[in-house]
Amino acid sequence: MEKDLSQYKEASTAISHLMETGEMEVNDPESNSLQQPLLKRDVTLSSIPLAMLGTKVSHIESLDYEIIENDLFKHDWRSRKKVEVLQYIFLKWTLAFLIGLLTGVIATLINLAIENIAGYKILAIDRLVKQQSYLTGFLYFTGANLVLTLVAAFLCVMFAPTAAGPGIPEIKAYLNGVDTPNMFGAPELIVKIFGSIGAVSAGLDLGKEGPLVHIGACIAALLGQGGPDSHRLKWRWLRYFNNDRDRRDLITCGAASGVCAAFRSPVGGVLFALEEVTTWWRSALLWRTFFSTAVVVVVLRVFIQYCTTHSCGLFGKGGLIMFDVSDVTVSYHTIDLLIVAVIGVIGGVLGSLYNYVLHKILRLYNIINAKGRLYKVLLSLSVSLFTSTCLYCLPFLSSCSPCDPSLPDSVCPTTGRTGNFKQFNCPPGYYNDLASLLHCTNDDAVRNIFSTSTPTEYHPLSLIIFFVLYCILGLFTFGISVPSGLFLPIILMGSAYGRLLGLVMGTYTKIDQGLFAVLGAAALMAGSMRMTVSLCVIFLELTNNLLLLPITMFVLLIAKTVGDSFNPSIYEIILHLKGLPFLEVHPEPWMRNLTVGELADAKEAVVTLNGVEKVARIVEVLSNTKHNGFPVIDQGIALRVGLPNTSTKLHGIILRSHLVAALRKKWFLTDNRKTEEWEVRQMFTSVDLAEKVGMTEALEVTKDEMEMYVDLHPLTNTTPYTVLESMSVAKALVLFRQVALRHLLIVPQYQGAEVPPVIGILTRQDLRAHNILNAFPYLAKPKSS
Amino acid sequence: MEKDLSQYKEASTAISHLMETGEMEVNDPESNSLQQPLLKRDVTLSSIPLAMLGTKVSHIESLDYEIIENDLFKHDWRSRKKVEVLQYIFLKWTLAFLIGLLTGVIATLINLAIENIAGYKILAIDRLVKQQSYLTGFLYFTGANLVLTLVAAFLCVMFAPTAAGPGIPEIKAYLNGVDTPNMFGAPELIVKIFGSIGAVSAGLDLGKEGPLVHIGACIAALLGQGGPDSHRLKWRWLRYFNNDRDRRDLITCGAASGVCAAFRSPVGGVLFALEEVTTWWRSALLWRTFFSTAVVVVVLRVFIQYCTTHSCGLFGKGGLIMFDVSDVTVSYHTIDLLIVAVIGVIGGVLGSLYNYVLHKILRLYNIINAKGRLYKVLLSLSVSLFTSTCLYCLPFLSSCSPCDPSLPDSVCPTTGRTGNFKQFNCPPGYYNDLASLLHCTNDDAVRNIFSTSTPTEYHPLSLIIFFVLYCILGLFTFGISVPSGLFLPIILMGSAYGRLLGLVMGTYTKIDQGLFAVLGAAALMAGSMRMTVSLCVIFLELTNNLLLLPITMFVLLIAKTVGDSFNPSIYEIILHLKGLPFLEVHPEPWMRNLTVGELADAKEAVVTLNGVEKVARIVEVLSNTKHNGFPVIDQGIALRVGLPNTSTKLHGIILRSHLVAALRKKWFLTDNRKTEEWEVRQMFTSVDLAEKVGMTEALEVTKDEMEMYVDLHPLTNTTPYTVLESMSVAKALVLFRQVALRHLLIVPQYQGAEVPPVIGILTRQDLRAHNILNAFPYLAKPKSS
Repeated sequence: MEKDLSQYKEASTAISHLMETGEMEVNDPESNSLQQPLLKRDVTLSSIPLAMLGTKVSHIESLDYEIIENDLFKHDWRSRKKVEVLQYIFLKWTLAFLIGLLTGVIATLINLAIENIAGYKILAIDRLVKQQSYLTGFLYFTGANLVLTLVAAFLCVMFAPTAAGPGIPEIKAYLNGVDTPNMFGAPELIVKIFGSIGAVSAGLDLGKEGPLVHIGACIAALLGQGGPDSHRLKWRWLRYFNNDRDRRDLITCGAASGVCAAFRSPVGGVLFALEEVTTWWRSALLWRTFFSTAVVVVVLRVFIQYCTTHSCGLFGKGGLIMFDVSDVTVSYHTIDLLIVAVIGVIGGVLGSLYNYVLHKILRLYNIINAKGRLYKVLLSLSVSLFTSTCLYCLPFLSSCSPCDPSLPDSVCPTTGRTGNFKQFNCPPGYYNDLASLLHCTNDDAVRNIFSTSTPTEYHPLSLIIFFVLYCILGLFTFGISVPSGLFLPIILMGSAYGRLLGLVMGTYTKIDQGLFAVLGAAALMAGSMRMTVSLCVIFLELTNNLLLLPITMFVLLIAKTVGDSFNPSIYEIILHLKGLPFLEVHPEPWMRNLTVGELADAKEAVVTLNGVEKVARIVEVLSNTKHNGFPVIDQGIALRVGLPNTSTKLHGIILRSHLVAALRKKWFLTDNRKTEEWEVRQMFTSVDLAEKVGMTEALEVTKDEMEMYVDLHPLTNTTPYTVLESMSVAKALVLFRQVALRHLLIVPQYQGAEVPPVIGILTRQDLRAHNILNAFPYLAKPKSS
Repeated sequence: MEKDLSQYKEASTAISHLMETGEMEVNDPESNSLQQPLLKRDVTLSSIPLAMLGTKVSHIESLDYEIIENDLFKHDWRSRKKVEVLQYIFLKWTLAFLIGLLTGVIATLINLAIENIAGYKILAIDRLVKQQSYLTGFLYFTGANLVLTLVAAFLCVMFAPTAAGPGIPEIKAYLNGVDTPNMFGAPELIVKIFGSIGAVSAGLDLGKEGPLVHIGACIAALLGQGGPDSHRLKWRWLRYFNNDRDRRDLITCGAASGVCAAFRSPVGGVLFALEEVTTWWRSALLWRTFFSTAVVVVVLRVFIQYCTTHSCGLFGKGGLIMFDVSDVTVSYHTIDLLIVAVIGVIGGVLGSLYNYVLHKILRLYNIINAKGRLYKVLLSLSVSLFTSTCLYCLPFLSSCSPCDPSLPDSVCPTTGRTGNFKQFNCPPGYYNDLASLLHCTNDDAVRNIFSTSTPTEYHPLSLIIFFVLYCILGLFTFGISVPSGLFLPIILMGSAYGRLLGLVMGTYTKIDQGLFAVLGAAALMAGSMRMTVSLCVIFLELTNNLLLLPITMFVLLIAKTVGDSFNPSIYEIILHLKGLPFLEVHPEPWMRNLTVGELADAKEAVVTLNGVEKVARIVEVLSNTKHNGFPVIDQGIALRVGLPNTSTKLHGIILRSHLVAALRKKWFLTDNRKTEEWEVRQMFTSVDLAEKVGMTEALEVTKDEMEMYVDLHPLTNTTPYTVLESMSVAKALVLFRQVALRHLLIVPQYQGAEVPPVIGILTRQDLRAHNILNAFPYLAKPKSS
C-alpha cells in the first residue's frame, strides 16, 4: 500500500514537473494544448487531469461507456428497424474482418521494409569487414543507424509525440475508460508505421511488437470513425459506431490483431487482449476478436508463401520470431524441473529488478524529454550512437571459433544476411559467435540464440557480454521518443541468461540449450510483465511444440510469483508513471473506512441545473466549471399528485457536450415551459448528440438570448447510476468500474423536506487512491496503528 | 425475442408440471423438500423459485456475492492482522493445489476403473464371438451393461438425484449467483464418481467429461468448507472461505481442473471455464485456475508414466481422448478450404438441429422422470438395453474386409481390447470395420475414427450406420438419470459425418480422412455448444498439431455462426429448461421501455423494519414472508441536526439469516435503544453471521420476549446498492449482474416530506425476462407495431 502510494506521489511529481517545464515550449505542437490555465481549486479533494501519452502531456477526460438514456436516444432506439440492426451486425463483422486484414497487411509490409533495410545494411558492413576496412564499416554502420533513428525520432517528435513508446499502457487506459486524445488518429498510425521501421532497422534494442498492437488499435479506431479526423467518411452506417462503447470493442479487436501479427499467435493475441489489455470483456467479444486474429494469421501466411515463391528482396523468414522446435523431443526428469525452477526464480528476480530500474530511468528520461523537442531527438541519437558502437565493436572482442566439421559449408560460416554462424572478421572455416548475435536484426538474434542442437556454438563469455549489453540497452532504449516495444528487449535479455544457465548446467541436464534460452525468455517476461496464460499460449504458438507446455507453465508461474512479491508489473508501473487514471479491479482496503458522503464533503459543492434553465445560467456554468456532467433537478412545481410543493425531483444528469449542442443549435424557448418530444426531434437527432464537442468559446449568445430558456429534460440521461451517501468508497469503486461509469451521483440517505435530492457527484479522478489520500491522509496510516 | 419467450414459457410449464406430478411421491427423498406449499401471490409479478438440479426439483435462492458491510464485518476486517491475510493467501493457493491434485487423481482412478471394467467385458465378448457363441455373447454383453447401468442409475436416483446429467448448467448457474442446493456435497461427489464409472463402462453413449467438471467443482466446494456438511472440519483458517465469494472462486478452479482432467488440456480448461462457465472473471483468478490445471496435467502425466512401466490392468492410453497427429503434415489449398467450409456449415446446421430435438426429448424425459424413482431407473435401463442391442448386433451387418497386406499382423486384425482393426466375427486376416467403432469404449471409438493414413478402413455404409446410430443414442441417452456428459456423444456424431464427408471428397482433397473426422467433431461441437476459443484450444491440445489451428478456427467460426442463426447454445437451452434463473449478459431490448419503479409497483409492497424493532414484528415478518432481505429504516427521532422530525433515513438492508441469528442468540433489549458496538461484539462474531440459517420454526420465543426489542443497526448492511425509480430495467439488470447482487433497493426520485425512503426491492427473479413479461405482456409485442 505504501509502495503504491509513493509511486503515485512520484507520478504526480513527475507530471507537475512536466507542467512547469512545459511552459517553455508554448508553440511546440506537443505542448499542453489547454486553452486556459488549470484552475487551482482550493478544496481538499483535487486532481490534475493530465497524463503522459507517448511523450506528450495531455489533458485527459473519461469516456462515456454508459448508455446515455435520454429521450432522443430512447426514440432513436425505439424507431430502429430490424434492417438497421442487421446493418449494424453486418458492419461489426466487416470491420472485424477489415481490422484483421489491414493489420496483417501492414505488419507484413513493416517486416518487409525492416528486413530489406537492415538486410542491405548488414550485407554492406559484412563486405567492408571482409575487406578489413573496419573504420569505414564502423562509420557506415553508425551513420546508417543514426540516420534511421533520426527519421524515427523526427517523425515522432514533430508529428505525433503520442506515438512514442509501445502504446500498450495508453490502450489499456483507454479500454479502462480514460479518453486518450491523439492516440488513435491517422498521424499516429503513419508515424508508428514508419517510426517503427526506422527504429527497428536502426538496430536499436526495441521491438515492433508493442507498436504493432498500437497500429492495430489505430486501424480499428480509424475504420470505426470512417477515416482520419479531418476527412471522415460520412457514411450513414458508420453512425452506429460513433459512440465510445462500440469504439472500445473495435480497439480491443485491433489490439488482439496487433499481438497476433507480432507473434503469429492467434489464440495468444486474443488472450493477451483479455488478460492484459481490456477491462471489460464478454463472450461475444471473445469470438469477434478471435475472428480478427484468424484473418491476420491467414494474411501473414499468404504473404510468407508468396515471398517463398516470388522475390521479396531480402525478406527471409517473414521477420517473425519463429522458433519452430516441433521436431525437438522434450524429455525431462526431476533434476531438470529443479533447474527449470531456478530459471523461473532468476526470471522473477531479474524481471522485478528490471521493472525497478526502468522506472527510475523513465523518470529521468521524462525530465530530459520535457526540456523540448531538440532534447528528445538528441537523446534518441545518443542512444543510437551508443547502441551502434557496442554492436559493431564488441564482436571484435570475441575470438574466432572453428566450425564444426559435420556442418556443411553453407551453414557454417555464413556471410549472408541471416544465418547462425557469422563469419564476420574470421578466416574461412571459422565463425564469430558474438557477431552471430549482434550483427543481425533483433529477430535473427532471437532465432540464433534459440537455436537447438548447437551446444558448443557460444562461448560463455560471449553470452555474458551479450546479456550485460542487452541489459544496459534494454533499460536505456525504452524511454526514447521513437515507437518501441518491450517484448523483444526482454526476450533477448531472458534468452541470454537462459542459454547461459543451460551452458553451465550442460552436464547435469538433457534439455537442449535452445530450450533453456526459450524458458529464460519466458521467465523474464513473466517476471516483468506478469502475464501467465497469454504468455504461455504465445510461447506455445511460437515454439510450435505442445510438449513444452507443462514446463513453460511451471516456469511462468514461478517467475510471476517471485516477481509479484517485489513490485507491480511493468505496465502498471508505466501507467502510474504516466499519471493515467486507471481504475484497478480491487479497491484499496482502507476505502472501506470512507463513505462517498465524506468524499463529497471534501469536494466543491455539486453544480446542479433546473429542468428548464435560463440560457445565462447554462453559459455561466459551462464557462466557470470544468465538470462534464450536471445533475438536473425539478423543483417547486407540483411534481406528482400527493407531494407537497416543496418537493424536489432528481430528473437525471446532462452531459456538458449536450449542453453545448443545445447552445450551438440555439434551441431556446421564450418562456419557462416543458417541451414536447416532437419539438426536440425537429432540432436534434441522436447522431448530433453523439458528436463530441466541448468548446464554449466559439458560441455567440446575444444578450436577448441570455434571458431565454432551454428545456433540458429531453437531453437529460434519466437513468443515471446512483449510490447512497452511506456507501463505502470501496463498493462505489466496484460499481464505477464494473458498470463503466463516467459520473456517479450521490443521493442522500435521508428523506425529508429540506434534503437536497443529490449531494454530490463522483468521477474517475475522485475515486483514485492517491487523490483520496491527499484529502484524507490519515487513511494511509499503516494498519497496525 | 419471441423464440426466447416461448422457451421460457415452456420452461415454466415443464416445472409446473413437475410440481403437480411431484405430489405423487411425497416421501421420495428426491421430491420437493419445501416445508410449506408455495404461497400463490395474487400480485402481478410473481415467480416460481424452483428449478431442476440434475433430475431433482429444488427450491433455489440467490447467493450473497455482495460484501455485506455491517458493523461486525467492518470490525472484523479492521482487526484482521497481516498474518491472517498471509494465512488466507497461503490457504487459497494450497486449496488451488489440492483441487488440481485431487481432481487429477480421481480422474485417473475413474479412467483406470472404466478401462478395466469395459476392457474385461470386451475381451470376454471377443472370446465368445470367436467361439461363435453369438447368443451367449449377446446375453453376456447386454446383461453386463444392464447391471452397470443399474448401479449408476440406482446410486443416482437413491442418493443424489442432483448428480444426474453433466452438472455444467448447474455450475454455470451457481457461478452466476444461483444457489443450487445439494449440488456440491459429498453424496454428489461419490455418486458422480461411481455413477460415471458405471455409465461409461456400460457402453452408454455418454462421456465422463461433463461429470469430471462437476467432480472438480464438488472437490473444490468440499475442500473449501472442510469436508461434507455433516462432518465439517472446524479449522480456524477455513473460516476465510465460509462465504459465497471465495466459494465461487474455488468452484471456478474446480471446473477448470475438471475440463483439464477430461481432455488433458490445461489452457483449454482455463478457457472453457472462462468462456462457458463463469459469469465474473478477473486476472487473479485466471492465474489461480491456470495453476490448478497445471497440477492436474502433472498428475495425469505421472500416472500415465507409471502405468506404462508398471501394470495397471488393462489401462491403456490413459483413457483420454488423445489424438496425437503431430506427425501429420497439414497442407491445404483453396479447394480444401471450400470443403472445410462445408463441414462447418453442416456442423452448424446439425448442431442446432441436435439442440432443437434434444430439447424436445428432454421435456419428454422430464415428464417420465417426474413419475417417480422407478420410472427413472426403468428409463435408464431401457436406454441401456437399446444401446447394447445396437452395439452388439450392428457389426454383424457389416461384411468383413481384408487387411491391408502392408500392415503387420499385430495391427490388423486385432483381437485385444483396443486396436483399430477389430477381427470380431471375421476370419484371420480380415477385420470388421463397424466392430472397430462399436465394440470398444467410446474413447477408443473416437481414436479409431480419428485414425489417420487409413483411407480405406471404413466402408461408407458402416460410417452411415455409425452416424445414424450415434445420432439416435446421443439424443436419447443424455436425459437419463445417470451422470452423463455431452462432449463425447457430440464428438462421436461429428467425427462420423466428418469422416464420411472425407470419404466422399477423397479424390478432391489431400486432407487426411482422420483430419476430416477431427474437423467434423469440432464443427458439431461449435454448432451445438457455441464455444470458440476454448474449443479451439482444446482441439489444439488434443491433436497436438499447431498447423491445424487456422483451419480449426475457420471451421469453428462458420459452425458457430450458422448455429447461432437458428437457436441458442445447448447449455442455454438446458438452463432455460431447468428453470434456473440465469442472468444473461445483455438485457432484452424491451427492458429499456420499463422503469424499475413500474416493476416495483407490480410487486407486493416492500416490507421494511425499523432500526430498533420489536421482536414480535421480526417474528411476524420472518414467518409471513419469504423475502431474504429487509430494508432497515430509521424514523421519527431526530436523525441529523437541521432535519425536521418527519424525516426518515434508509439505514441499509438486513438479511433474513442475520435476523434469525439475532433471534437464535436471543439478543433482545428491554427498551427501545441503540446499542454500542462492544455490546454486539460480545454476542456475535462475523463467523457466526457467515453461517447460513434460514429456519424460523425451531425458534422458541416466549411471550415476554415478544415485547422486547432488537437493535438491527449493527447487523445491517449499511452499504446496499440502490437505483432510482426512474432507472430502466435494462440498466438495473446490468448493475445487478455486474456487481453480483442479491438485493437491489429502489429509492425514490423525489425528495420531500411524504416520500418513503425506499419504494421497492429487486431480486434476481424480478429481473428475469419471462417473469417481467408475465406482468407486462404488452412489452413482448413485436417491434414493428
